[in-house]
Amino acid sequence: MKSNKKITNNFISGKSESEQEFFNKIIDLGLKFFSGEIRDNKVLKYKTPEAFLKELKDTLPANGIDDDTVLDTLQEIGEYSISQSDLNYIAFPDSANSKHAMAGEIFSKFLNQNLIAFDRSATIATFIEIQLIEWLRELIGYDFKPTSEIKSLSEVGGMWTTGGHMSNHIAIMSALNQKYPEIKEKGLTSLSVTPKIVLSGKISHYSYNSAMHHLGLGNANIISAESNADFTTNLNDLENILKEHVGSNDVFMVVAVAGNCRTACIDNIEKIAQICQKYNTWLHVDACHGGSLLFSNKLKGRDLKGIEMADSVALDPHKGMFVTYPSSYVMFKQRDNLVKFTRYPEQVRNGESWDLGYITPFFGSRGFESLKIWLMIKALGKDYLGEVVEKRDEDAQFVWNKIEDSRYFTNFHEMDFYRMAFVYYPKDVKSIVDQEELTDKQKLSIKSCIDKYTHKINQELYESGDVCLDEFKLHDIGDTIGLNLSSERYFVMSITVGNPLYTEESLSNSLSYLFEKAKHYHKDIHKEINEIIFDGKEQQNLIRSTGPAGWN
Amino acid sequence: MKSNKKITNNFISGKSESEQEFFNKIIDLGLKFFSGEIRDNKVLKYKTPEAFLKELKDTLPANGIDDDTVLDTLQEIGEYSISQSDLNYIAFPDSANSKHAMAGEIFSKFLNQNLIAFDRSATIATFIEIQLIEWLRELIGYDFKPTSEIKSLSEVGGMWTTGGHMSNHIAIMSALNQKYPEIKEKGLTSLSVTPKIVLSGKISHYSYNSAMHHLGLGNANIISAESNADFTTNLNDLENILKEHVGSNDVFMVVAVAGNCRTACIDNIEKIAQICQKYNTWLHVDACHGGSLLFSNKLKGRDLKGIEMADSVALDPHKGMFVTYPSSYVMFKQRDNLVKFTRYPEQVRNGESWDLGYITPFFGSRGFESLKIWLMIKALGKDYLGEVVEKRDEDAQFVWNKIEDSRYFTNFHEMDFYRMAFVYYPKDVKSIVDQEELTDKQKLSIKSCIDKYTHKINQELYESGDVCLDEFKLHDIGDTIGLNLSSERYFVMSITVGNPLYTEESLSNSLSYLFEKAKHYHKDIHKEINEIIFDGKEQQNLIRSTGPAGWN
Repeated sequence: MKSNKKITNNFISGKSESEQEFFNKIIDLGLKFFSGEIRDNKVLKYKTPEAFLKELKDTLPANGIDDDTVLDTLQEIGEYSISQSDLNYIAFPDSANSKHAMAGEIFSKFLNQNLIAFDRSATIATFIEIQLIEWLRELIGYDFKPTSEIKSLSEVGGMWTTGGHMSNHIAIMSALNQKYPEIKEKGLTSLSVTPKIVLSGKISHYSYNSAMHHLGLGNANIISAESNADFTTNLNDLENILKEHVGSNDVFMVVAVAGNCRTACIDNIEKIAQICQKYNTWLHVDACHGGSLLFSNKLKGRDLKGIEMADSVALDPHKGMFVTYPSSYVMFKQRDNLVKFTRYPEQVRNGESWDLGYITPFFGSRGFESLKIWLMIKALGKDYLGEVVEKRDEDAQFVWNKIEDSRYFTNFHEMDFYRMAFVYYPKDVKSIVDQEELTDKQKLSIKSCIDKYTHKINQELYESGDVCLDEFKLHDIGDTIGLNLSSERYFVMSITVGNPLYTEESLSNSLSYLFEKAKHYHKDIHKEINEIIFDGKEQQNLIRSTGPAGWN
Repeated sequence: MKSNKKITNNFISGKSESEQEFFNKIIDLGLKFFSGEIRDNKVLKYKTPEAFLKELKDTLPANGIDDDTVLDTLQEIGEYSISQSDLNYIAFPDSANSKHAMAGEIFSKFLNQNLIAFDRSATIATFIEIQLIEWLRELIGYDFKPTSEIKSLSEVGGMWTTGGHMSNHIAIMSALNQKYPEIKEKGLTSLSVTPKIVLSGKISHYSYNSAMHHLGLGNANIISAESNADFTTNLNDLENILKEHVGSNDVFMVVAVAGNCRTACIDNIEKIAQICQKYNTWLHVDACHGGSLLFSNKLKGRDLKGIEMADSVALDPHKGMFVTYPSSYVMFKQRDNLVKFTRYPEQVRNGESWDLGYITPFFGSRGFESLKIWLMIKALGKDYLGEVVEKRDEDAQFVWNKIEDSRYFTNFHEMDFYRMAFVYYPKDVKSIVDQEELTDKQKLSIKSCIDKYTHKINQELYESGDVCLDEFKLHDIGDTIGLNLSSERYFVMSITVGNPLYTEESLSNSLSYLFEKAKHYHKDIHKEINEIIFDGKEQQNLIRSTGPAGWN
């Protein structure tokens, strides 16, 4: 080892042609993942969990492998990774295919700047991140200024985090410590009240429940407001809760949802903000999904009115903004909010220290994660990104219309933007069921039947590797199914339109796989539901020619 | 926008040669950052914070820039970023120059797998991460098995995190919830005791104080054990504290330090583990710095004996293991520790779900961050990495000896491995001071003088861009300076030997800049300290020929 000979082959000097060649091969493999070539042009190549586990059996290897085998290994990993940027991937919006964001991402890895070490590592990186945070403030509608006017870290009114979960957590922690500053020294057990948050449990993200646990507040101290049929927070119920708790003064935060993670429906933020102002309560807007709309003045006006009134906002560029994980930001109306978490209040106020880690809870040494989105905005500009987001909105409407027009599916909600959740419940079958008086048992059987076929279709599409939709369980809050089973959750399939490279042609192609399966199972679901309703009695023909010509 | 024409130039299809060329240019720039060419072969090109802020003044740009300008922008960012992999960077161990880790990192960004979405994104990625966690268990000495024998998520006894801060936080949260499971539902205010941790405050990382605040426990509930002169936890004091708290049963965790962040000195883990077992208290070993030694059986035996007895261990491969940020892991002796944080205890125990996000607090959607270190271990093997770590140990000893032999500096501690902290206090000056009876005022003046020159030398070296050492404040716990100022902290300079590409020649070259400055200021510090001691009296010649020939 003393000779240093082996060392120099395995660590980057930046001076050898073989390194350049090696990394260019990695780029080549990466682009083959984007093109689909690496996985035979499928969205995915299916294998069972057991198969993967069986193959990856090795314990810690004593010896290494050569570089050709390394490249083969990466190729195989690419082959069995699911591509969220494939045109037939319509499950989730994390396409991460901005060319400029990817360039920023790769370069940031070579730089490996440490954002807690301003003057030993991340000099220009620190200020680029601060500039980006100003840009995000400007997008939200918070006060903003040119970076040249920033005098100290205490003015940095937002921070990078790893994801929406963390952004939401830090927002709650901020509101909590704002109201009860004694926690820092004495802890929660010193308080005379039990702090509580208010959110609409059926539409809020699970991270709030986790945060209540992790912060030591307890899940029992979440107050859940009703959800409306359109998957938004019920304003009357919210106001009643706040009114009721005025006396005990124990509510420290309200959460409004700007795009819930299931249907992406958006709360009336402006109205919620007014209620919060009236009751002097911290408002957090969870815009992890909806945040990308800020780039379009038109869509911001349509969906996010009033967001600038929020005390904190969570943004998640790795969702719906074409950049890789991790990229999330939690933003604060009050610029110096983060100062309450520092060990060095004086130095971060007087401009002596520029170590971002001094004001960012949970993150010490960390990389230059902001370069990617900063570079994308720099390269493309706000106006262009606004147009991309508007085009995505049109694409989503196109898909929504196709799903509706097929008459094979029942949507659980009207679409606010980009995401839709629906079940396989053909409209002709539904229209017959709707006319019958059903027992509770029959209702549950019909639900099971809808669940079964919804899952079956989705799973078959998934395993084929032709197209990939999302799947999860959802309350039928608006009773669009009409079975009035409010406590049950349905298996839904879901589409999110996230990839800017979709075209009407590509989307039609993706949907054709779905419609083909839907057609295939039409007679089967008809027959089963017929049996549930007319058990033992004469069966009716439920199928009518309601789909596009020739589909039945 | 409808035409889709502009879109296709800015988002990756994987099918165009221009994309390949563009990314190859990014690789080229990245390698120029490693070689130093991008910044005129300096460690850094110095600019003041004000200069950066002034240049980065733009508010949110409405319009973009072309790709040539994008490349110029990245080049400029590279020019003003400090390289932690430069051979003249000896401040911190985060060299991140493993060729294979970098390949894994870049490829993982192209893959953009989401580790909370096993079957919609990260299939093989999930199992590779699980395999890596087994490898880390094996390194620590925990029970381990081939991946093929893992039956459910509940067996995954560790998790990726963003850094040591987060790993430590999750370890504390685990110990806390282990002892007080009612927190999840009812919160801390429902407890009848006030939970406390024990650590040695002078050597522990600040993340523990932050965690005590953020978890709602309060800084007042940290019990600080004494630190020994060698920057380790005092065992007697630790045991006395635990004994004293047996009755109140409020201590839920003890922290042992395997490489503190200032001097990298390592606690006697085995002894601390025995004390913790005796008092039935959760032991967390903070091996963020020391963890890399696990690859060498020799060094593990020398420095980390007993680590396998810890209930949790924090490892930080982005420190000292040649991989980029973020790469940290928190490991648990009890495999199913993380199940206490899940929403789906049944599914993670029965093997129905493989979404790692279900068991990882704080992290929902997140990328395939484990690929880089998995690939490096796969490519190089444990034995080779052990040799690299041993070579680094020899390099560190070489530097230590050079610093000692120069007789210009006073070390604050004996070196355990890779990091050393010292001040500019030439031995000939010290030997005269040691013979005098000094007033408190004189002692403080001498300390100020040492601080001044230590900082001056370091700052001049830093601004020159020739060599980059670390700098921070440190208690002289062992009174190696001999002024007996136990409550004061000194400005120290620090060297960490992290880069595997260092050679004796490169290290000698880096140190030559330091020694030259030391020589330059020798007469000045002599004169000033002379004046402090012999104020108004006849001055003595403090300088003797104690340095290498010709240096005085």
